[in-house]
Amino acid sequence: MSRYQARNRRADAVRSRAAILDAALRLLRADPDASVEAIAAAADVTRQTVYAHFRSRERLLAAVVEQVTGETAAAMDAADPDTGPAAEALLRVLDAAARTAERYPGLVQAIVTNPVSPRTDREAHAPISERLIRVIERGRASGEFDAGLPAGWLATVTITLAHAAGEQVAAGLMPPEEAARAMRTTLLRALTPP
Amino acid sequence: MSRYQARNRRADAVRSRAAILDAALRLLRADPDASVEAIAAAADVTRQTVYAHFRSRERLLAAVVEQVTGETAAAMDAADPDTGPAAEALLRVLDAAARTAERYPGLVQAIVTNPVSPRTDREAHAPISERLIRVIERGRASGEFDAGLPAGWLATVTITLAHAAGEQVAAGLMPPEEAARAMRTTLLRALTPP
Repeated sequence: MSRYQARNRRADAVRSRAAILDAALRLLRADPDASVEAIAAAADVTRQTVYAHFRSRERLLAAVVEQVTGETAAAMDAADPDTGPAAEALLRVLDAAARTAERYPGLVQAIVTNPVSPRTDREAHAPISERLIRVIERGRASGEFDAGLPAGWLATVTITLAHAAGEQVAAGLMPPEEAARAMRTTLLRALTPP
Repeated sequence: MSRYQARNRRADAVRSRAAILDAALRLLRADPDASVEAIAAAADVTRQTVYAHFRSRERLLAAVVEQVTGETAAAMDAADPDTGPAAEALLRVLDAAARTAERYPGLVQAIVTNPVSPRTDREAHAPISERLIRVIERGRASGEFDAGLPAGWLATVTITLAHAAGEQVAAGLMPPEEAARAMRTTLLRALTPP
């Protein structure tokens, strides 16, 4: 195989991987149980090609989680986490994350109710936690947030309350605006020193 | 079949159901993936008998969840939810619930990371939520807790933060005492009006 052919083949592989991920995102959004067969068909590749890129459905799901996490992290970075009061920055960054997650409703629910694995899930969440912790550390340093509680715990509280509000909305128990307001009030209160 | 025989047969069925549930609790505690075969063997019945009582492994798991929920609710009731300041009652009741859950560590983790189904899970949690909501309503009425936020949201916050603290401990991220202290501080702050 010539160098030219090898380069072409690599470009093909990159394209088919992207097409599979794209199809997986679209299908899983509509149906969290979408099969590898259906994803392959939507990406216009064979089932074998999917398995050549992702060893199992679980691996494919993990790659999808990684992709969504990357988009979420980018949206958080675009929301000016390092500017202004930490409380406002935190709500801004959370809002940006929620807007990204809202684009993949079925998907986020699928991941929450059926995580790939607790460890994978924690690792996948790391880029999100890191960004929250940076804002939280800034708030702890400025005295806006309680420095008497570990930053990791405050990040857990933030993620947990944000997910809980999303679940209340998804379950039809609270209208979106009420859930957002309740979440913000509770969260800021929980973070603020006495 | 005589009435006497029929009564005997019913008593046998009750005993074998109890033995299966008991074995399931013991085995799932050690290994959340314990098979129906292993549970049948531990209960000294056949696999067919297990399926005669519980149509599927999922149904058996749901019955186990119901059993643990019942024990938890009883422990909460024994912790004097209706006496004294609501904040103290809430922490007392949560503590009683946590002590019951601690008796089934593998099991609670199995349910959290792999819920039977979000709906079943919510229904199974109902007796626990109801007890928390009763204390929360009392605190909202007395002004100890914020009546400006829905009682259902405050119960969600309570359950969510309690689970989060448990997960931090299970993942080795926080020592149990630190997690309990952080959870109590955060929770009471979140519930207290400004």
